[in-house]
Order: sequence, then C-alpha cells, then structure tokens
Amino acid sequence: MTDEHYMKLALELAKSAEGQTSPNPMVGAVVVKDGQIAGMGAHLRAGEHHAEVHALNMAGDKAMDSVIYVTLEPCSHYGKTPPCADRIIEAGVKKVVIAAIDQNPIVSGKGIQRLREAGLEVVTGICRQEAESMNKVFNHFQKHRKPYVTLKTAVSLDGKIAAASGESKWITSAESRDDAHRYRHSHDAILVGIGTVLADNPSLTTRLPNGGSNPIRIILDTTLQTPIEAKLVTDSEAPTWIITGSGVSMEQILPYTEKGVRVIPLSTPSIEIESVLELLGSENITSLFVEGGSSVNGSFLQSGSIQQVIMYQAPILIGGSDAPQPFGGGGIERLKDALKLELESVERIGPDIKITASVRGGS
Amino acid sequence: MTDEHYMKLALELAKSAEGQTSPNPMVGAVVVKDGQIAGMGAHLRAGEHHAEVHALNMAGDKAMDSVIYVTLEPCSHYGKTPPCADRIIEAGVKKVVIAAIDQNPIVSGKGIQRLREAGLEVVTGICRQEAESMNKVFNHFQKHRKPYVTLKTAVSLDGKIAAASGESKWITSAESRDDAHRYRHSHDAILVGIGTVLADNPSLTTRLPNGGSNPIRIILDTTLQTPIEAKLVTDSEAPTWIITGSGVSMEQILPYTEKGVRVIPLSTPSIEIESVLELLGSENITSLFVEGGSSVNGSFLQSGSIQQVIMYQAPILIGGSDAPQPFGGGGIERLKDALKLELESVERIGPDIKITASVRGGS
Repeated sequence: MTDEHYMKLALELAKSAEGQTSPNPMVGAVVVKDGQIAGMGAHLRAGEHHAEVHALNMAGDKAMDSVIYVTLEPCSHYGKTPPCADRIIEAGVKKVVIAAIDQNPIVSGKGIQRLREAGLEVVTGICRQEAESMNKVFNHFQKHRKPYVTLKTAVSLDGKIAAASGESKWITSAESRDDAHRYRHSHDAILVGIGTVLADNPSLTTRLPNGGSNPIRIILDTTLQTPIEAKLVTDSEAPTWIITGSGVSMEQILPYTEKGVRVIPLSTPSIEIESVLELLGSENITSLFVEGGSSVNGSFLQSGSIQQVIMYQAPILIGGSDAPQPFGGGGIERLKDALKLELESVERIGPDIKITASVRGGS
Repeated sequence: MTDEHYMKLALELAKSAEGQTSPNPMVGAVVVKDGQIAGMGAHLRAGEHHAEVHALNMAGDKAMDSVIYVTLEPCSHYGKTPPCADRIIEAGVKKVVIAAIDQNPIVSGKGIQRLREAGLEVVTGICRQEAESMNKVFNHFQKHRKPYVTLKTAVSLDGKIAAASGESKWITSAESRDDAHRYRHSHDAILVGIGTVLADNPSLTTRLPNGGSNPIRIILDTTLQTPIEAKLVTDSEAPTWIITGSGVSMEQILPYTEKGVRVIPLSTPSIEIESVLELLGSENITSLFVEGGSSVNGSFLQSGSIQQVIMYQAPILIGGSDAPQPFGGGGIERLKDALKLELESVERIGPDIKITASVRGGS
C-alpha cells in the first residue's frame, strides 16, 4: 500500500466529523504496523481526544515501531489536551506521515520539530491539498480571527431572487431547499437581515431527515425592528443574536433580553460587515452561513467578505430590470474588480443546478 | 442486432449533417439485408437526395427483401424530389422501421399508409424521442412557420452581463466565446439589436477552426440608426438584413441598399417580436440565434418567443442593482408566469459553466 492510500483513509475519518469539531479542525489518523492497520481515529469534538490519541489507543502495544498517518501536523503545546507529538513519541512510533502543516502560529512546524528531535522519521505533504481544503474554515479563522463566510442564494437562470411582484416562494425546488439545510448543520452561525425577518419570519433551524445541529441565528437589525413575536425571538430552538447599530437604547433591548435573545449594539450607528465579522470572530464563530436578501448580500460582496458561494439556480427566466437580484446595492464598478471565484462543483439537483464556488487561492 | 442498434446508427448519420439541411429536417437511413448493413445514407442538403435514396442506391440489388431504418417517416408527395415511399416500394424492401412521424401536415401518416397499402411491414416509434428532439427546429417551423429561437447570453454567476460601468469585455472566457461560434454555424440567422451594433460593431460571422457557414445577420433597428460604415453593412461576409419600424423613408433606406444590405420596414412604427418572427418564417428562416443585449432579450422573453437558452456563466460576482442584466424591460410580474425551461445540459467549459435549457414539451 502507498502512503496516499492510508492518508486518504485518514482524510475520510476526519471528514466524518464535519460540523462537530468547531472551533477545532477536522483531523484523522491511521496507525499502520507491518502493513496492517492497527488503529484509526478522528477528532470528534473540541475538548475531547485528538485523532492521534484515538488511533494510538486503538493500536495499543502495536503502536511500537508503527507508522502513523495524520491529516494535520500533531500539536506540540498544552491546550485542552496534552501535546499529541509527545504521545506519539511515547508510544514508540517510528515514522509520522503528515498531510498539512498546522497554520496556527502557536503550533506551525513545532510539532514536526519535536518529532524529529526525538529521532522519528517525518514525511510531510502527502495529500496536502485535500487536507488543507477540508479545513479551509479552520485555516481562515486561524489566519484572520473572523468566520469563513459562505453565502447561499437561490435564483432563476437569469439571476433573479423574486419576480417583479416580490414573490419568491419558491423559485427553486424542494430538493434544492432541502439540500441547503445541511449547510445550516455544518456552520457555527447563520445570518440574515431584518428585511428577511420581516418578510418571511423564518426559524433558520436545521431541518434534516436525521436531525442536525442548529447554528446560532444572527440578525443584522440596525434600529432593532425585529418583531418581539418573531419565531427567532420566541421559539428557543437555538440561540439568537441581534446585532444593531449604536443608536439603540437599553429600554429597546430589554424585552429581547427577557426572551433570552442576545442584543449586541456595535459602536457605530450603521452596521459595517467588517465589524460584524470581527465581533463574531471574538465569539469563536469560525463559520458563517449568510442567507441574506439583496441588501445584506450586497454589503457582504462590497466589503469583500465572501469566501464561498452556494448558488441554486432554477431553470426559469423572470427577466425585468427591477425584479430583485441576489446582490443589491452599488455592486462592483469595474469588471477587473469583480469578485473572482473558482468553481468547486456544478451539480444538477432535482430540476435545478447547484453551483459551489470559492474565492481563488482560499482565504 | 436490435432495431434500436440500427436506428441509432441512422440517427448518427442524420446528425452528421447538422447545420446544412435547412429548411429540411436531418434524416438518416440504414438498409439491412440478412443481418448485414447493405446501405447507409443521410439527407445532406435541401434539393438533394433524401436519406432513403442514398441508402437504397448504395444497397443496389441488396435492397430486395431488406429492412430499411429511417429516422423520419418517408415522404409520399412530390417535392423537389420524387416520393421516397414509392422508391422504397419499387426497391422491393419488405419492412420499414421508422423513428418519428413527419409533422408536416402534407406528409404526416401518409407515407406510412402508402407503404402499408403496398404490403410492406411498417414499425414505428423506435428511438422516437431522440429523432424528434434532433429535429425540434424543423418540427417547430412546420408547426408555427416561425423560426425556432435560441437565445445566447454570457453572464456573471449573479446574472450580470456587464459591470456597473457598462464594461462587458469579457465576462466569460475565450473558451466559452469560441464555443458559442458553433451555434452561429448551425443557425439560419443571427439577430442583434441596434444597441449591440452601436456598442460593439460586431461582424457576427462564424469563426471556427475549420470554418463554418455564416448565418444571415439581422439587426432590429426601429429608426435605422445602423452606421453606414458598420462591419455588418460593409464587410460582405454574409447577407445583412435590417428590420425597421414603418417610419423609415426610402431616402434613408437607399444608402444601405446600395451596399447590398436588405432593409425591411415592418407595418408598425415599433418593432414587435411576433411580427419579426412571422417575417423571418415567410423567408424560410427556420432557426434564429439571438445574441441581443438586455433590451432585445427582454422583448423576446416578454413576447414568449424563446424556445431555447444557451447561457455561459463566469464564476465571478458583480452585484449591484443597476449593472446590466440579460433580460431587461418589465420582465415577468408573477412567479407562476416565469418562462419554465428544462435543463438539457450543464457543463463546465474552461473556467465557466455552460447551461443549455429549452422550453418544456418542446415548441
């Protein structure tokens, strides 16, 4: 078997925990002794064992003189758990194969250094691209301390999110709408504007056949117009945060607080996307799913705050200069300044098309 | 071998002549004698042999007691060539397998009737759907006496044909732009609005590596503003027709006529798409490729005159409420009235996406 073979297995293990490791990355590990798999593991939840520890535990005595495949450089510092590099050394592993280097400045390269100093052979870069892409959210957060932003929109083939009448239910099919729910599961938070709350009174929960976790629900609401009877205020299905401008009074805020909703005024009268992302970053929100209308989406585009786009397109034409579009506001003036994305996938889903694209070169 | 096997071969033969049979349909034929292919043919050009005649000529004496596979019901009337049904009977063919029934009211069912009356066995419906879809242009024209309209547009992922500044060169890649040229080859005519002529001074010719035929070039130009030095007027690469409103004088028309350009005033002051299509139908234009801007495309959408859409999407976001869109004008007011299409194909082409969709249930 090749190094790639075992590393791909480790990647599969890592991915199985998608949506449950935040704010930690997904990591998988495989222990191989004399050409046989002796242990496997993945990091499942922040605060719990790292992947290497699960795999070494499973391997037991067979870890001695084994090769361990890890999708991310083992840590060398004491966090919520002891350093994995030490655990690997103690177990008597002879060779460590690593896919991606940790981009956390506290760890980067140091885990490898410690392993090498202890006399272990270290190979890096096997399936690196796949490993890095899997943890693009984690890497982005490490680098910027702001959430990785995925914006989802559903349009007609000619890029309309509603007919001229304002009608938007439904442009895309039930299949597409169902599909979008799995992104709610895999994100720390979901964000809409006050316009969407007033128009649709959404619950923004994750509705999947076998359940799923609900993201924190965030409303951008400059002057605190969210109805006190809105589902997001009353349903207690998941935390709701309302981000407002600085002009909101304590008196206005109190009724929401009493319902368990967190109201966070920014220091400026209007809501700047940049400030919102900094705030969310400071709250350890690593991934943000934006389901905004024209106005919110337009603000995210113009502030250069989009990392990924999920677009569902229905094969219908609506036309018209004034029918609502996915990105409102002033838009990009010059073609050379348009937000350049790279297609990740183009699929057919029911009668619709689903396009996933992300900013070139990652974050 | 199955009937489907031979019919698929006949369909391949038929398709090989795509773009050169107008106003006739594409037709293929295969003659099989004692389990061996004895003759093959396709209709190559209007006025020349029908597919059955080519195949029977190739088969010679072997046509006696053979089975002939034809993608379209053999004709029973004298057109530019004698009826194929008679030729099949005379050749001694014992069985005729037909994919699609001719939708031309002069022919429909009559060819089959004549064959049966002469004692031949007739089987119909083998690969019918594929045969009908191949000749959707021909069938549409037979039924409506108006060209089958394919509209092509190139947009950003969020449905913009230009940035807010008006810049549109280039939203999509060279690969996508090259790909669009093969549709010029396969259409009888190409249509743009005066806006496109003034903005881009296009030549609208077919530029393909191994050449291709140029469509008739049609400009919608209500008040005859086409510059007399425009490429479409001066380059003599292909016929150019300018369709105008009724308010245009002979004096205005004369300079164009002198350059060999045909100017056709409609009977109304403004240009109604319906009238344009009737006019083109009466001129035996069976297929029309629309490369309009917002305004022309919007008129085609609102008049319900689009049969097929080819959309190239670049993975960029432009945004903005005012940046130009593929379909201008008033658009569709209610969602239920949106033009419903069915996806034919979704492909990646270079960095872009290419979507082909056509009106449900054909024409």
